[in-house]
Amino acid sequence: MATLDDVSQRGSVLDLGINTLLEESGVAKASLYAHFGSKEQLIVAWLERRQEAWFGWFDAHVEKHARHGDPASEIDAAFGFLEAWLSRDDFAGCPFITVYVQLQNEEHPAALESRRYAERLHAYFFERLRRMKRPTGRAKEEAAALLDLYLGAVVVGQLGVAGSRAATAARRTARAILSDVL
Amino acid sequence: MATLDDVSQRGSVLDLGINTLLEESGVAKASLYAHFGSKEQLIVAWLERRQEAWFGWFDAHVEKHARHGDPASEIDAAFGFLEAWLSRDDFAGCPFITVYVQLQNEEHPAALESRRYAERLHAYFFERLRRMKRPTGRAKEEAAALLDLYLGAVVVGQLGVAGSRAATAARRTARAILSDVL
Repeated sequence: MATLDDVSQRGSVLDLGINTLLEESGVAKASLYAHFGSKEQLIVAWLERRQEAWFGWFDAHVEKHARHGDPASEIDAAFGFLEAWLSRDDFAGCPFITVYVQLQNEEHPAALESRRYAERLHAYFFERLRRMKRPTGRAKEEAAALLDLYLGAVVVGQLGVAGSRAATAARRTARAILSDVL
Repeated sequence: MATLDDVSQRGSVLDLGINTLLEESGVAKASLYAHFGSKEQLIVAWLERRQEAWFGWFDAHVEKHARHGDPASEIDAAFGFLEAWLSRDDFAGCPFITVYVQLQNEEHPAALESRRYAERLHAYFFERLRRMKRPTGRAKEEAAALLDLYLGAVVVGQLGVAGSRAATAARRTARAILSDVL
């Protein structure tokens, strides 16, 4: 569906009016409403597609770089994806964080969809820590630390602070967590 | 000046129109422009005051909880402030990140002011790591990791993912970085 792909390079669609969305996507208003019902549902649909696309890139990178079936190697490769993402010329922050922060309304359907992205990443780390035989409590704490590092590097990278170190420092710290020294 | 304090509890002022700002602050439009020149400058002034207030709370907490003159203890207390901040009922994310992300324009004067907040926090960590006799390169990398953890915990806390672990996991990881095990 061209509608969503055409705007998918933006950091956020929230500041777009319906008319701009229609203009950019080349879709008639009647067709838009027939598909999505409302602008709100269009944003949610856009976020769902962004999330599937993002995890598609993420999974492909991990598949290529991690040792198969090795959970620590998979988490390390996930941070390798972070490094690759932040070093892209078109990196413009995380669209899910952007939409969440722009909404300032945690009950909005698009905010719930954004939270689902962070929960999925958190679950990704937690499940692998459990496969590494971490006790549940420790796995929960380490998964939270890995999520802090991951989303923190995204925000620090977006702010342009700490040079290019945001992702490499996050990966190095994640490795230390995984290697049992913490 | 009541103008800025009255809106200081909001996560962001960017979605406020000039008339709302005037209404909330009880200031006449002529007086507003006489003081700030434009809405843009009002936002910058608001961010400057927020930043001074934030570092005031931060410094007071560190002063109270850290061993005087001990840079590792000061950084640990800085993460203690993070725990206290995120556990407040009125925690609504970081206003500097919020404004930066909402603007989607890194050259906007308010975006520069928001970046200044993150740079100041980064410098805070870096200077203390140097006092801990870390070589410059390592201090830069560790300061980046601490900033990732700090701002990441703010975003994870705002998203409401990982329960209440965002700040405690960040502090625990920061302690490990400081204690030389990484």
